[in-house]
Amino acid sequence: MLRVAIIGAGRIGRVHAESVASHPKATLVAVCDPMGTAAEDLAAVYGAKAYKDAADVFADTEVDAVIVGSPTPLHAEHVLGATRSGKAVLVEKPVAKDVEEARALDAELATFEHPPVMVGFQRRYDPSIRGAKDLVDAGKIGDVEQVVIVARDPSAPPASYVAVSGGLFKDMSIHDFDEARFFLGDIEEVVAFGQQTLPELKDTGDFDAAMILLRGKNGTVASITNQRRCVTGYDQRLEVHGSEGSVSMDNWRDTTLHLNKAEFSGSQDPYQNFFLQRYAAAYRNELTAFIDAIVDGAPVSPTVSDGVAALVIAQAAGESAASGRAVRIEG
Amino acid sequence: MLRVAIIGAGRIGRVHAESVASHPKATLVAVCDPMGTAAEDLAAVYGAKAYKDAADVFADTEVDAVIVGSPTPLHAEHVLGATRSGKAVLVEKPVAKDVEEARALDAELATFEHPPVMVGFQRRYDPSIRGAKDLVDAGKIGDVEQVVIVARDPSAPPASYVAVSGGLFKDMSIHDFDEARFFLGDIEEVVAFGQQTLPELKDTGDFDAAMILLRGKNGTVASITNQRRCVTGYDQRLEVHGSEGSVSMDNWRDTTLHLNKAEFSGSQDPYQNFFLQRYAAAYRNELTAFIDAIVDGAPVSPTVSDGVAALVIAQAAGESAASGRAVRIEG
Amino acid sequence: MLRVAIIGAGRIGRVHAESVASHPKATLVAVCDPMGTAAEDLAAVYGAKAYKDAADVFADTEVDAVIVGSPTPLHAEHVLGATRSGKAVLVEKPVAKDVEEARALDAELATFEHPPVMVGFQRRYDPSIRGAKDLVDAGKIGDVEQVVIVARDPSAPPASYVAVSGGLFKDMSIHDFDEARFFLGDIEEVVAFGQQTLPELKDTGDFDAAMILLRGKNGTVASITNQRRCVTGYDQRLEVHGSEGSVSMDNWRDTTLHLNKAEFSGSQDPYQNFFLQRYAAAYRNELTAFIDAIVDGAPVSPTVSDGVAALVIAQAAGESAASGRAVRIEG
Amino acid sequence: MLRVAIIGAGRIGRVHAESVASHPKATLVAVCDPMGTAAEDLAAVYGAKAYKDAADVFADTEVDAVIVGSPTPLHAEHVLGATRSGKAVLVEKPVAKDVEEARALDAELATFEHPPVMVGFQRRYDPSIRGAKDLVDAGKIGDVEQVVIVARDPSAPPASYVAVSGGLFKDMSIHDFDEARFFLGDIEEVVAFGQQTLPELKDTGDFDAAMILLRGKNGTVASITNQRRCVTGYDQRLEVHGSEGSVSMDNWRDTTLHLNKAEFSGSQDPYQNFFLQRYAAAYRNELTAFIDAIVDGAPVSPTVSDGVAALVIAQAAGESAASGRAVRIEG
Repeated sequence: MLRVAIIGAGRIGRVHAESVASHPKATLVAVCDPMGTAAEDLAAVYGAKAYKDAADVFADTEVDAVIVGSPTPLHAEHVLGATRSGKAVLVEKPVAKDVEEARALDAELATFEHPPVMVGFQRRYDPSIRGAKDLVDAGKIGDVEQVVIVARDPSAPPASYVAVSGGLFKDMSIHDFDEARFFLGDIEEVVAFGQQTLPELKDTGDFDAAMILLRGKNGTVASITNQRRCVTGYDQRLEVHGSEGSVSMDNWRDTTLHLNKAEFSGSQDPYQNFFLQRYAAAYRNELTAFIDAIVDGAPVSPTVSDGVAALVIAQAAGESAASGRAVRIEG
Repeated sequence: MLRVAIIGAGRIGRVHAESVASHPKATLVAVCDPMGTAAEDLAAVYGAKAYKDAADVFADTEVDAVIVGSPTPLHAEHVLGATRSGKAVLVEKPVAKDVEEARALDAELATFEHPPVMVGFQRRYDPSIRGAKDLVDAGKIGDVEQVVIVARDPSAPPASYVAVSGGLFKDMSIHDFDEARFFLGDIEEVVAFGQQTLPELKDTGDFDAAMILLRGKNGTVASITNQRRCVTGYDQRLEVHGSEGSVSMDNWRDTTLHLNKAEFSGSQDPYQNFFLQRYAAAYRNELTAFIDAIVDGAPVSPTVSDGVAALVIAQAAGESAASGRAVRIEG
Repeated sequence: MLRVAIIGAGRIGRVHAESVASHPKATLVAVCDPMGTAAEDLAAVYGAKAYKDAADVFADTEVDAVIVGSPTPLHAEHVLGATRSGKAVLVEKPVAKDVEEARALDAELATFEHPPVMVGFQRRYDPSIRGAKDLVDAGKIGDVEQVVIVARDPSAPPASYVAVSGGLFKDMSIHDFDEARFFLGDIEEVVAFGQQTLPELKDTGDFDAAMILLRGKNGTVASITNQRRCVTGYDQRLEVHGSEGSVSMDNWRDTTLHLNKAEFSGSQDPYQNFFLQRYAAAYRNELTAFIDAIVDGAPVSPTVSDGVAALVIAQAAGESAASGRAVRIEG
Repeated sequence: MLRVAIIGAGRIGRVHAESVASHPKATLVAVCDPMGTAAEDLAAVYGAKAYKDAADVFADTEVDAVIVGSPTPLHAEHVLGATRSGKAVLVEKPVAKDVEEARALDAELATFEHPPVMVGFQRRYDPSIRGAKDLVDAGKIGDVEQVVIVARDPSAPPASYVAVSGGLFKDMSIHDFDEARFFLGDIEEVVAFGQQTLPELKDTGDFDAAMILLRGKNGTVASITNQRRCVTGYDQRLEVHGSEGSVSMDNWRDTTLHLNKAEFSGSQDPYQNFFLQRYAAAYRNELTAFIDAIVDGAPVSPTVSDGVAALVIAQAAGESAASGRAVRIEG
């Protein structure tokens, strides 16, 4: 059994805690959070130790792996602390607070031996998105030419969260940037149209919606449609168009029911409400891949370099939205 | 151009008039109806002659083919009148008012040379039902084992119509009996549960809904769900289950739109409202098949014998609904 | 925590074991199976005690509730043993090996005080089927008039299983009979057409497919389509037609992907493969309902009487399939 | 009956000829085409007069309205010739060969009295797209915020056509620009990523695929995905996302069949093959709107100004694709 500690007892930390607790090859041994009784409360549910200081996690010799779900500005510090203590790391996105810090982290990790470090773009482990990739890799749709991603959250987070989120592109679109890279490979050009549609977020100065185009180095292109508020639920869709066909992903609903009345037919439930439901299987599969990387030496995906690349795109999207120009990505 | 006359200027007569008028290989030359100005009114739309007496149609040497859409009790007389005058006939279902008369008609037609006689089970010419049959015939689903037919009208006809309709099984289910035979072949056993669900039809003494099982001579079985009133529209569906797969047919809507709101997702238009819309292509294709049978000698389908077979099943269904027993079909 | 023992460590026993182990309000304390090391093997996974003799389960004062998943001929004995020891019971279907024994069990249970006894028709707890019932109960489709159930297993069990299964109607259709009763209420008439489609099961003398009609005492009717082998997976569908609308349930797939090529569009995964996947949520919800009945005194559904009623229908279906007549159900 | 002449006997001319011939309020009186026997051949089908010189159409006092389907460089000349002769005009897109010429045409038409001039963006008359607009106008989805348009042709035209087509944006995307304006209103900013994916078109120097973002003056944004070749057929989809819901449009297929096998389920026909099938109803409705504008003085939509606006966007998209910058649209 892999002994796992979680740093950060917030929403995403609780998701991971449950994934770890119910995983046949992992056990949750510690939860760390400096805020009030957050660590104790979550740890108590699973019979784990509670820490307030991340240093105690790193010093704990009964911890094999750390899931870093702390606030973004602490990611780099926590990744380095854990790896230097010989622990494997699964770090939430974004990998660091900005491109410079992310690149520095990636460079620093290259200077010493350490267990696997994986970045939490869980969509790569969603059965549908993974299934689409498998169809592509099997040549079922020929060469990928165009990708259409729609990702809209059910409702906006509070303005207080948005204010410290790093902005729409780094906080929300970054998942779509990694998803686009999953199908297009490296990106060389980005253009973004940002929007402010929600009065309650206007004072944050941040965009709450955007449409973005990406061009891959291999000539493929992708569009991304993001919005912080979709009344029908968590709208997560994908189309991959190739030279010999296409594959598209629809939303999940809680039931397979269709209601037919005089005024309409085929009416279904709203989309599943949010990422905890929609990506429940993805989080489980992600954890399995993380364990396999640690135990069996299976290749890590996505890597810290993938995390850096997504952050570079996010930064470029921000520049494009501000300047009204397409931004080229170097390197 | 095939010169066509229509006997019966009612609802189905008008459907055929438009099909004939817009068909590139046919022209409508006469309309016959004894009621008021019905023939004149319909004939005027298409510049055709108007007759009150069917004998005048049979005597008209400028008529090559007759579509018989008169009341059921006159079908046999009109089919014989037309064929004896050397005209081809497309006769609406049911082919005659009862099994005895239908069998007599079939026998009589065997005693003299005449152009093709086809029975108006238009569903055999619907692109979806025909497409399902083509998939079956191509072996795509292996051996047919079970068939599920759902056929529900949008709203019940007036009690006055029901009273003279011959009853649910001969008037409505007969299309489903032919559709079942299209996939199962000859039927050897029938059982029916009739229902009275509509207060406005209760005094007719007729069923307004039914569920029916059919067993083919080859061991396949089919279920039929009929109802005179479906608030969502004209509900016409089919499933054919085989040893190596299945094929199912959904309803048509007027648009391909889906509406998504906070309370629901994927809501579509109601089903298309009735047979004129739903089977518009089927009526056109049926006419083409009729013309091809006349002009090119293509095989006739469905034949008068098919019409007799469907009527035999309808009669057996009526007996079963009355007796509570499965009824075997001889011959 | 409710302390649960499972009698029968076969396929269904393992399903329940996992449901119990992962349920927040229950804990698995014992597994009982007389065959080889079956009990020990399953008990070891969850750290439970292993018994070979059901009497030991009944005598175990650390057991609050018993899930009876033993062979059908032992159901009645195990239900009585457990209840007489003051334990609650969730018994798998069918509730007893025949109608007489089931009625005797129901009568015997009425003679003494005991905790709740629930019958394992888990479909009543499936989110989609339960959701359809909720829509019906909320009046969304008006009065129920017709129900269409399609239930086809992915592949037939071995002939050895079929030989002792009690036959298609008691072994497989019985779930559909309970589902029909869920929507129609008490049934007064049954007619069934049995089929033998699978050569490998021919020697069992049992039907491997059937179409069945049921009529409720309130005049509603239902059709059931059963087959032991559906190559596309576990085909579980339902339509409920009412006076003001209808609700239908589609199959689940493992992903929401659609593949589009030159020859076809919208191609999806096969249906989920079998009941463990398809009804995973139903088994969890069923267990919750069982616990709520024990702990909070919530009403039991389905009851032993429901189990008897389904068995009565199964017996009548068998008689009908043999005699070719509709069979009336008394009482 | 409105007497209609058609200039241009090519593919789109034949579409209009059939629409006119089968329209109850219109009759085709003349066809004009300078190439070989094109005019005679098409005219003969409908019993119309054949002209080689457009001037003869303008001089023909038996012509009430002209449908201009000539090559794009002749559009402006033919529109002016017809209107100066007092004839109504339905002109195909693009309204002129470039923005300057289109603006000059629009200005010239403002200097004299003439019957209605309508531009042939037939999608505004498609039941689904029109239905989506009606839902939006009825407030069903709140304020429009984002629009996603996917429009992919089944197969590329020959290189010879592409060479004189005016380029992807003016030839193909222009329909999407008008569709976007239908939902977003006036556009103020455009950015386009062009692609060359088809070897057979590489020498034309034109893009054969593109992804485009548009920003409306009201802050809404739209993405367009275009491709000259989609192996599954004519892929025409639309999503309109609003503050209170969304509406999406799926493709049409020729049947409603779904095929289920061991390897897949729900497989449907490919998308309908091309615009003649897909937009058949749209062309009919467009003609009706044109006739209503002439006969009843109903408002014209889309106007020549709409045609100019779409062309302005197309030109801006071309500039953006060449420069890599978002292009602002003045005025």
